[in-house]
Amino acid sequence: MSSTTSNRRTLRQQAMQNIHQIAPHQFTGSHRVYLDAGEDIQVPCRAVTLTDALKSQIFLYDCSGAFGDPAQQVNVRRGLPTLRQTWLDARQDTTPTQRQFSPDDIELEQWPTEFSSDCRRALPGKTVTQLHYARAGIITAEMKFIACRENMAIDNLASQQDERLQPQQSGRSFGAHIPKHINAEFVRAEVAAGRAIIPLNINHPEAEPMIIGRNFLVKVNANIGNSSVSSSIEEEVEKLIWSTRWGADTVMDLSTGRRIHQTREWIIRNSPVPIGTVPIYQCLEKVGGKVDALSWELFLETLQEQAEQGVDYFTIHAGVLWEFLPLTAKRLTGIVSRGGAIMAQWCQTKQQQNFIYQHFREICALCAQYDISLSLGDGLRPGSIADANDEAQFAELRTLGELTKIAWEYDVQVMIEGPGHVPLQLIEANMTEQLKHCHEAPFYTLGPLTTDIAPGYDHITSGIGAALIGWFGCAMLCYVTPKEHLGLPDKEDVKQGLITYKIAAHAADLAKGHPAAQLRDNALSAARYDFRWQDQFNLALDPDTARAYYQQSAPAGQADEHA
Amino acid sequence: MSSTTSNRRTLRQQAMQNIHQIAPHQFTGSHRVYLDAGEDIQVPCRAVTLTDALKSQIFLYDCSGAFGDPAQQVNVRRGLPTLRQTWLDARQDTTPTQRQFSPDDIELEQWPTEFSSDCRRALPGKTVTQLHYARAGIITAEMKFIACRENMAIDNLASQQDERLQPQQSGRSFGAHIPKHINAEFVRAEVAAGRAIIPLNINHPEAEPMIIGRNFLVKVNANIGNSSVSSSIEEEVEKLIWSTRWGADTVMDLSTGRRIHQTREWIIRNSPVPIGTVPIYQCLEKVGGKVDALSWELFLETLQEQAEQGVDYFTIHAGVLWEFLPLTAKRLTGIVSRGGAIMAQWCQTKQQQNFIYQHFREICALCAQYDISLSLGDGLRPGSIADANDEAQFAELRTLGELTKIAWEYDVQVMIEGPGHVPLQLIEANMTEQLKHCHEAPFYTLGPLTTDIAPGYDHITSGIGAALIGWFGCAMLCYVTPKEHLGLPDKEDVKQGLITYKIAAHAADLAKGHPAAQLRDNALSAARYDFRWQDQFNLALDPDTARAYYQQSAPAGQADEHA
Repeated sequence: MSSTTSNRRTLRQQAMQNIHQIAPHQFTGSHRVYLDAGEDIQVPCRAVTLTDALKSQIFLYDCSGAFGDPAQQVNVRRGLPTLRQTWLDARQDTTPTQRQFSPDDIELEQWPTEFSSDCRRALPGKTVTQLHYARAGIITAEMKFIACRENMAIDNLASQQDERLQPQQSGRSFGAHIPKHINAEFVRAEVAAGRAIIPLNINHPEAEPMIIGRNFLVKVNANIGNSSVSSSIEEEVEKLIWSTRWGADTVMDLSTGRRIHQTREWIIRNSPVPIGTVPIYQCLEKVGGKVDALSWELFLETLQEQAEQGVDYFTIHAGVLWEFLPLTAKRLTGIVSRGGAIMAQWCQTKQQQNFIYQHFREICALCAQYDISLSLGDGLRPGSIADANDEAQFAELRTLGELTKIAWEYDVQVMIEGPGHVPLQLIEANMTEQLKHCHEAPFYTLGPLTTDIAPGYDHITSGIGAALIGWFGCAMLCYVTPKEHLGLPDKEDVKQGLITYKIAAHAADLAKGHPAAQLRDNALSAARYDFRWQDQFNLALDPDTARAYYQQSAPAGQADEHA
Repeated sequence: MSSTTSNRRTLRQQAMQNIHQIAPHQFTGSHRVYLDAGEDIQVPCRAVTLTDALKSQIFLYDCSGAFGDPAQQVNVRRGLPTLRQTWLDARQDTTPTQRQFSPDDIELEQWPTEFSSDCRRALPGKTVTQLHYARAGIITAEMKFIACRENMAIDNLASQQDERLQPQQSGRSFGAHIPKHINAEFVRAEVAAGRAIIPLNINHPEAEPMIIGRNFLVKVNANIGNSSVSSSIEEEVEKLIWSTRWGADTVMDLSTGRRIHQTREWIIRNSPVPIGTVPIYQCLEKVGGKVDALSWELFLETLQEQAEQGVDYFTIHAGVLWEFLPLTAKRLTGIVSRGGAIMAQWCQTKQQQNFIYQHFREICALCAQYDISLSLGDGLRPGSIADANDEAQFAELRTLGELTKIAWEYDVQVMIEGPGHVPLQLIEANMTEQLKHCHEAPFYTLGPLTTDIAPGYDHITSGIGAALIGWFGCAMLCYVTPKEHLGLPDKEDVKQGLITYKIAAHAADLAKGHPAAQLRDNALSAARYDFRWQDQFNLALDPDTARAYYQQSAPAGQADEHA
């Protein structure tokens, strides 16, 4: 045990040093540019300049925020610049105030922060959600940012690029309708229809706008977070920055250990991407792990605390109804969702209905004041191939559809979480049932894992399912790392999970026929055909690994090394 | 350069030591058992005894031959025992003879072999293929072996197992018809119909029978082979043994460097799985790489040489017709198949039709005498997403269908090779076109890669496509390693490629509803639910990695580490 402890201390010290000395990172051959979305809205992207005759430029979607811009100074003790401050101010529907919840030990021991203890709240009677604005016909700055970001200037650049890069295979969209050019009005209309969400708490002005919806690029979420037995705030901040480098569109902080509030503060203040949480985890820490000590009051207080901090979306297990629990009795693997298991245990111990369900309208009212999106958790998702698509799962899904309608009454943005473990032939039904019962609210799935036989490789078993459900219309894919079912992911696991899921998301974008998707494939393939090795590396999802593998080998064959 | 040379020497010495000292390997918690298929036919499998109340046994398909059986002595200089010798003798349709082609330097420098320079040939007028026997209504020992191997005794064991392990989700088979129980008559009928092949040269009696067809378990091929600049015979033999440990159902020796004949000899004599080659590679070595020096006579001589050695299937690019070449002119990535590019260049230089196509009947006549299966190569397969499903590819596919009919006239077994690089939405058409034009002969695809943007991770980009096309009916999946497009795979790459493809194949088996598929998922999931960690590791595709990841981590969460 002492070697474990000393190993943990070393890791933490390394992480502290890493984030203290952090300097913005650029991949070789890439540089940060900002696309002008009008009205002083600057959209970051990673530009790769090719070595072809035309010096074609390829613009890549970039999630790394200031950590990907050498022109910016970053100081994790201060946090990122507040990009959205002026937009929020201009709307005049919020007011600054002192936070109610400001634990005094936010600061790390030898390392004081400059985080503010203020927050912003909607003015009385005001709803400040993107859905509210969208329904009112207002195109927000966030929507303009997103429209520009989704297009990555493909139209403007086409004439300056090698013409071989232009062709695009026809997609098969399963009912998605992606326009050739995404404009801000389209973004507004999709949000207004509830088909897409922009998860951005007014107290997370550091975040860059992004959108989750099936008529946009498929997004990827990375889970990080410490536990009671491992990892530190420093390591989690490092994983956050690392995640955005490898393309995490959102990050969930699933911390369960000590200092949950402080870990989250560090993460949100330094995150260029939306942050999601599972508030029931913190509630359980507050009551020392005693499920029967959980209560609606504690839950509401925790939501309030996290709302002030700037959490962009809450996963809440409102659909785990007391009456559904018997449906899980004959399952091979019971209830595997941690949040689902907590709520199920509470219902059974108390012989009462799920308090999150009971108080759902109050939760919506709170979310409307901060623009927190709801991610309706699938607490009864299957934990094995055997349990996929059973009645427990679908009963909960239908309930989530009812709750979606209620959230929309409050102008609160909603997405729906999905499984889990599902064999290939049952994946499509998950998507069609979700669309049918949840009124086209965006779907956000974990994998799904398409077999249970490969622990250690569940990024791959699930990446297969993720690509498929992304194609069918799933809007965001929650990554799975190689450590799934075995332990907590380290930095390398986070990277492996992300690369696998960026592959799945991109394969889905190609398959749906997203107009901006195939350009990168074409550019990389043209480079391959022309033996422009550096261009291949620079365009790769992971330039470092591609370059290293090439250099390890003796001069390699040019084309496919196959018959 | 000198450090590269010394590095190469070290690797080679390590490999020599490894294979010299080789001892049969068993995974922890597993042991080798033999299932009795009657008539003294013993089918190897890996038995995992669980720690549940019933001490349930799970039998797993095992490709490792004698290298997986501690009761056997292995000596790579002598080669494996000749399992099929007595079956071949009993048929009395072959005769032993001296090999025509026996280069005198088969032996490694300081390391003499005991390989025989004899071979076996069909008696004049005799056809010795499994297809021939099948059509004559004969159930061979090979077919009995295969029937037993495909079932893995699921019926017999069910009553002794935890009943939670029995349920199976309904499959969606896309027209495949897999019976509940596979018997030898079914194997015969599928071979007779040309829907399945048993690739077993009469000169490779060391090989254990296996079957490739869409009404059987999806199979996986691993490519190995040295090149002029890297690797040695020792390393390739080590990779062969390693491949079968991780589940390679067949292995292709794609050597292109020096000593091709000797490398192949070592591989075949030590291979418990069928070996495929691309004979044009050796032809090209024989003429010093000069494509215009290739000729039909040289090709035939090379086929004869490899037939005597025991190659089980030949990939030949007979469908790359002179008139199809203009169809590739507008492609983004031209012709990426090495064999295809060689034949295309020959046709263009000589202004003549492809000699493999011209002499196809003579090739069939040769194959019929040794029972060599033909793998009709897709020399015009797409090398990028942009080129997928184009006219060049499908024109060749239709030609392969015509050639299939001709091969069947000679009772020669045939499978069809497929792409390559195909986005998700275009994969199904590959399968349906193949079934339509190639008369249900088994399909054998490379991947396909579902995006071009992830060099370094093409095992994953292609594993996604492989799972999908396996589900749709592809019978064998040719693996892709992380080094694809970048360099030659080392041992670790081979393993990564294999594990990824075993996942894809198994996901496809589940999706098709193969009756033996879900048992292993159920057993592993039940172990997970019961916290029987060792059972989880022992049942995993890669027990070593699962165990190591678990041990690396602090006590990990039990269920999914997610909301």
